[in-house]
Amino acid sequence: MSQCPAARIGDRLDEIDTPALVVDLDVLEANIRRMSAFAAERGVRLRPHAKTHKCSAIARLQIEAGAVGICCQKVGEAEAMADAGITDILVSNEVVGRRKLDRLAALSKRVRVAVCADHPGNVDDIDAAAARWDTVLTVLVEIDVGGGRCGTQPGEEALTLARRIAAAPNLRFGGVQAYHGPAQHKRTHDERRAAIEVAGRDLRRTLDMLEAEGLSSDIVGGAGTGSYAFETASGVWNELQVGSYVFMDHDYALNQGADGGPVQDFGHSLTIKTTVMSAPAPDRIITDAGLKAYTTDCGLPALMGCPGGEVLKASDEHTTIRFARPGDRPALGEALHLIPGHCDPTVNLHDWIVGVRGGRVECLWPVDARGALF
Amino acid sequence: MSQCPAARIGDRLDEIDTPALVVDLDVLEANIRRMSAFAAERGVRLRPHAKTHKCSAIARLQIEAGAVGICCQKVGEAEAMADAGITDILVSNEVVGRRKLDRLAALSKRVRVAVCADHPGNVDDIDAAAARWDTVLTVLVEIDVGGGRCGTQPGEEALTLARRIAAAPNLRFGGVQAYHGPAQHKRTHDERRAAIEVAGRDLRRTLDMLEAEGLSSDIVGGAGTGSYAFETASGVWNELQVGSYVFMDHDYALNQGADGGPVQDFGHSLTIKTTVMSAPAPDRIITDAGLKAYTTDCGLPALMGCPGGEVLKASDEHTTIRFARPGDRPALGEALHLIPGHCDPTVNLHDWIVGVRGGRVECLWPVDARGALF
Repeated sequence: MSQCPAARIGDRLDEIDTPALVVDLDVLEANIRRMSAFAAERGVRLRPHAKTHKCSAIARLQIEAGAVGICCQKVGEAEAMADAGITDILVSNEVVGRRKLDRLAALSKRVRVAVCADHPGNVDDIDAAAARWDTVLTVLVEIDVGGGRCGTQPGEEALTLARRIAAAPNLRFGGVQAYHGPAQHKRTHDERRAAIEVAGRDLRRTLDMLEAEGLSSDIVGGAGTGSYAFETASGVWNELQVGSYVFMDHDYALNQGADGGPVQDFGHSLTIKTTVMSAPAPDRIITDAGLKAYTTDCGLPALMGCPGGEVLKASDEHTTIRFARPGDRPALGEALHLIPGHCDPTVNLHDWIVGVRGGRVECLWPVDARGALF
Repeated sequence: MSQCPAARIGDRLDEIDTPALVVDLDVLEANIRRMSAFAAERGVRLRPHAKTHKCSAIARLQIEAGAVGICCQKVGEAEAMADAGITDILVSNEVVGRRKLDRLAALSKRVRVAVCADHPGNVDDIDAAAARWDTVLTVLVEIDVGGGRCGTQPGEEALTLARRIAAAPNLRFGGVQAYHGPAQHKRTHDERRAAIEVAGRDLRRTLDMLEAEGLSSDIVGGAGTGSYAFETASGVWNELQVGSYVFMDHDYALNQGADGGPVQDFGHSLTIKTTVMSAPAPDRIITDAGLKAYTTDCGLPALMGCPGGEVLKASDEHTTIRFARPGDRPALGEALHLIPGHCDPTVNLHDWIVGVRGGRVECLWPVDARGALF
């Protein structure tokens, strides 16, 4: 079920078979440098989220550029990253069930690993797994700072859970996880700032209560590519868990900056290369990438460098593109590049990332943790 | 990048790790039997679409039940199916580019294979590939019967292309491909019937023109799970390319039958097993499957057998479910089953299908053609 790469190292861009997941290495590296420099200048740690790329080669570039480690969402992702040499991993998510917790405890024998919890029964289960494996697991309390998903309420509920972690014989209290997902995609600068201000107050209050009982938080983690500047400016968070900045989803490019214009912190490094496989009408083409090559949960992909074209529809194996002026229409067999609406689930559809620089394939990176669901 | 299965043969249903793609074998087999019996009774051939399951074990069950072969959309899918022993494959799609056409020609040395075309230049390219491989390739003309995607126009344009195929030294004219995608998802019985009536007239007219020139169509293919009864009743099509009936997407279950009630030809055999990983509020749970375990291009998944629950949101690794009555809310660690809105791209996210009967895991089927994009 693992597929061959769509290219060979040394191929020209036009020789890459399609559909293929292509990364512009210059843009990727500039994105990584820029976020690393930001974190270093502001004095916050950077722990990028590997759920975005699921690729140990990119995780290594991030760590070489200054990241303290990575985040994962699944034990299987963490295992794949550890097997590829990554040694400091925060599972920024709850892990439930004996089999998964045993794997997490086993992993902690090999690399530095931490996990989140939001439920007392789950804390007891993590402690029992650590005991079975004769290890100590680091556990963060996840608090809901506005996302409405997982997490205890800030304040008393978080404090109660932190006490339970600290009191457990095989656990170490590691800090607080406070990620605000919906804030990432609020379109205006002021909406995003306001959401993180509220989150920051809830988080600060919780940290004060913890510190009053001597519970110090090694990690105060959160922030995404849509909001990281606000978490950093607050002075409350000490680790940024940004993921999408390496690739830049089309959806993030729709966010507005302080001046009302598009946010332009990072470039689009990731595209789907696709080929015109049908040109049935003067104003329409069909290309060979569809819902099995990119996802549409954050909207249709955008066309890169193809003036006059508009993506109309995605079906399982096809993209339908309309051209207002028939003269703009590419011919059968020509290639186009699509910028995915949402990179994370899109990358998860592919086994390989084709790395390109100066029009040639420079590397083929396995998406190590593709399909690592549990 | 290929993952371990979420279970072992003999496991109880509750021992399957999550998220996992689970198939109820009794329901699957009943679906396969029912469609085979329908085709046999009506005197049409059945060539199910393997783009739905991408799984040679299921393709074999379909063929054992009477199907004449299978359809694929990609050369890579066809290669995977051929490698697993399937010997009659129609690529019901255009294949463009020398590398892919060479692979198709190579494949034709091993199994019976046919492909579609809608462009004279592509016909010439297929002919050249067949010549390079000293083989004869069977080519169908795809006509657009209302889908607005690939395909020549019915009538004169189709005839011109068929002549070109018939005249090419290394090609055999194989018939007509006439699939109406949008008709599958029109909600009322009358809308679907009307769409296929129009398609059938266009197709009949085209076939008459072909036959008048001595171009007989071995395959007149089309039909999907939403419309197959209409194509069959028309007497124009001779092969059904239905795919989704084996699993039954939630979206198809929203179609109305002749009586205005839901269509109930086939049962839901495929679910995503998922576990409650957070229960942060009395009316809300979060489970461990998200956009990397199912797709939402045809809407959110439905809950199977979980009264009172409503799927609110899918994020990358989470599903948020609301319960109007807190007493209905499952507890942390309990399992639920989700019926995907769209099975085809959902199956493509998974390496394994876990086959269950009577509450026990009976088989683990590789999704052979998962990720076969080109």
